[in-house]
Amino acid sequence: MSTYRIGVDLGGTNIAAGLVDENYCILKKKSIKTNLPRTAEAICEDIAALCRTLCDEANIAFDNIAHIGIGSPGIICRGVVNSAANLGFHNTPLADMVAKLTGKPVSLKNDGNAAALGELVAGCGKGKSSLIAVTIGTGVGGGVILNNTIIEGFNGAAGEVGHIIIEAGGRPCGCGARGCFETYCSASALIRDTKEAMIAHPESALHTLAPTLDDVNGKTAFDGMRLGDETATAVVDHFINMLAVGVSSLIQLLQPEIICIGGGVAAEGDYLLLPLREKVVAQTLAGADGMRTTIVCATLGNDAGIIGAAV
Amino acid sequence: MSTYRIGVDLGGTNIAAGLVDENYCILKKKSIKTNLPRTAEAICEDIAALCRTLCDEANIAFDNIAHIGIGSPGIICRGVVNSAANLGFHNTPLADMVAKLTGKPVSLKNDGNAAALGELVAGCGKGKSSLIAVTIGTGVGGGVILNNTIIEGFNGAAGEVGHIIIEAGGRPCGCGARGCFETYCSASALIRDTKEAMIAHPESALHTLAPTLDDVNGKTAFDGMRLGDETATAVVDHFINMLAVGVSSLIQLLQPEIICIGGGVAAEGDYLLLPLREKVVAQTLAGADGMRTTIVCATLGNDAGIIGAAV
Repeated sequence: MSTYRIGVDLGGTNIAAGLVDENYCILKKKSIKTNLPRTAEAICEDIAALCRTLCDEANIAFDNIAHIGIGSPGIICRGVVNSAANLGFHNTPLADMVAKLTGKPVSLKNDGNAAALGELVAGCGKGKSSLIAVTIGTGVGGGVILNNTIIEGFNGAAGEVGHIIIEAGGRPCGCGARGCFETYCSASALIRDTKEAMIAHPESALHTLAPTLDDVNGKTAFDGMRLGDETATAVVDHFINMLAVGVSSLIQLLQPEIICIGGGVAAEGDYLLLPLREKVVAQTLAGADGMRTTIVCATLGNDAGIIGAAV
Repeated sequence: MSTYRIGVDLGGTNIAAGLVDENYCILKKKSIKTNLPRTAEAICEDIAALCRTLCDEANIAFDNIAHIGIGSPGIICRGVVNSAANLGFHNTPLADMVAKLTGKPVSLKNDGNAAALGELVAGCGKGKSSLIAVTIGTGVGGGVILNNTIIEGFNGAAGEVGHIIIEAGGRPCGCGARGCFETYCSASALIRDTKEAMIAHPESALHTLAPTLDDVNGKTAFDGMRLGDETATAVVDHFINMLAVGVSSLIQLLQPEIICIGGGVAAEGDYLLLPLREKVVAQTLAGADGMRTTIVCATLGNDAGIIGAAV
């Protein structure tokens, strides 16, 4: 008899769940709206129902589920969401709550850490034992895996890749610090930089690509660069320079086998990776036998969070 | 019958060795000159002889030595010093070489990592399982211990605490990058900043403390600050601001239980620690139950490297 696991990626907008086999393949997945604001109890009931529906639709008895894993935003410590502002959770024993509703053992991880673990076991880090995920979205998220272990910190708050400081006294960050990685390298930062460059350069081809500032997205500057537009090229250069600074710091400190870049901007592929790798090599030390961290794009997309939660 | 270990701290100037008991106490230590440039063979013979002399002088039979541990500069991978510029080593199988000369099992670690481990097992991190050492000297050295394990990286080059980048495009560093932590927070950087401030401010009391620029050391600016001198205070403020940026990055990423500041400047005690802690709290996230990394001064000094090597 095969056993399966369910991985749940709990987000502020959607709750996505996947039925995962022993090889970390997702057999079936399903997603519902989180519909915030709601109580933790209501969310847990939805998670439990979603897990059962997933099994029903896959024609797998719920008894065959060995384990449920949840990835949640926020600071996680021993099965408890200590705080997750966007979910309204505070000291919420999410693992126990879902365990009671399902009768299954439930584990809980931070969602960024879960996604990093997913990439390690089933994505771009398959077969490796160390990986740092840098996920470029509204902010910069991520997770650190060393020796096959998620680095959660003694207090559950580690892995805040987006909040290492890459420019002392730099751009103000929502976290209260200045110069955090994510103030330069999130998709939001890239979009804001693109808009500012357009305002400063009315002659730029960016205005053709995005007739109004509201049309700007994380791809606009890269598209402009491919048209040979100088303004767009400068925006992309600055973005990749700053990304290289953050990635270099991660390498100098931890030298993981893999650093994977995720989020929408990873779709740029070599337009992002080739200059990034060159800049990183120029400002990091190689290890024994010249071995260096491999920088790649994440391969699992949103599935990484589901798979990593299920591990 | 008690068993003992020997820890060897191999440096560019001295080779220090200590006889260490099961409780990580140093029973006896002894140091000789490294006398570079010399061959690795000659250095290993000296290390072996030093170990035997240490036992003789302590009246302990060499047979009672269970293990010899060496901490060496450079990139270390599986008992081999892959490269250590200041020793002139390249792919030097130091552990094997000393094992052959002594008939003992020999382990090899990077010296910064050994010192961090020493502080963890016998110094300011005793009883904890995670610690990052930030050692302020000619450069900024250090080591990262998580889950009681030294983070060496897949290629032996991890733990380069001094080369995380805290100011994109900032001060040029010997490593080829710009804005590395050590270009702002080494003792050399502090001394240079003190001298520059003195040149710019002929009225400063720093000129009384250090009649010539050659008299400036890592203590001068702190002494000037204690006299109420504005120029000195500005130098110290900048130094601690930048130290806080680097320490904050380490915390955001790894949330260890302890960050310990070592090197000469640690003698400043609360003059360093109190403002440092305040600045770090303002720019880092607390974890579960508000738990935060404790920032302290290293307590073992040079013994940390000997004890950590012996572990």
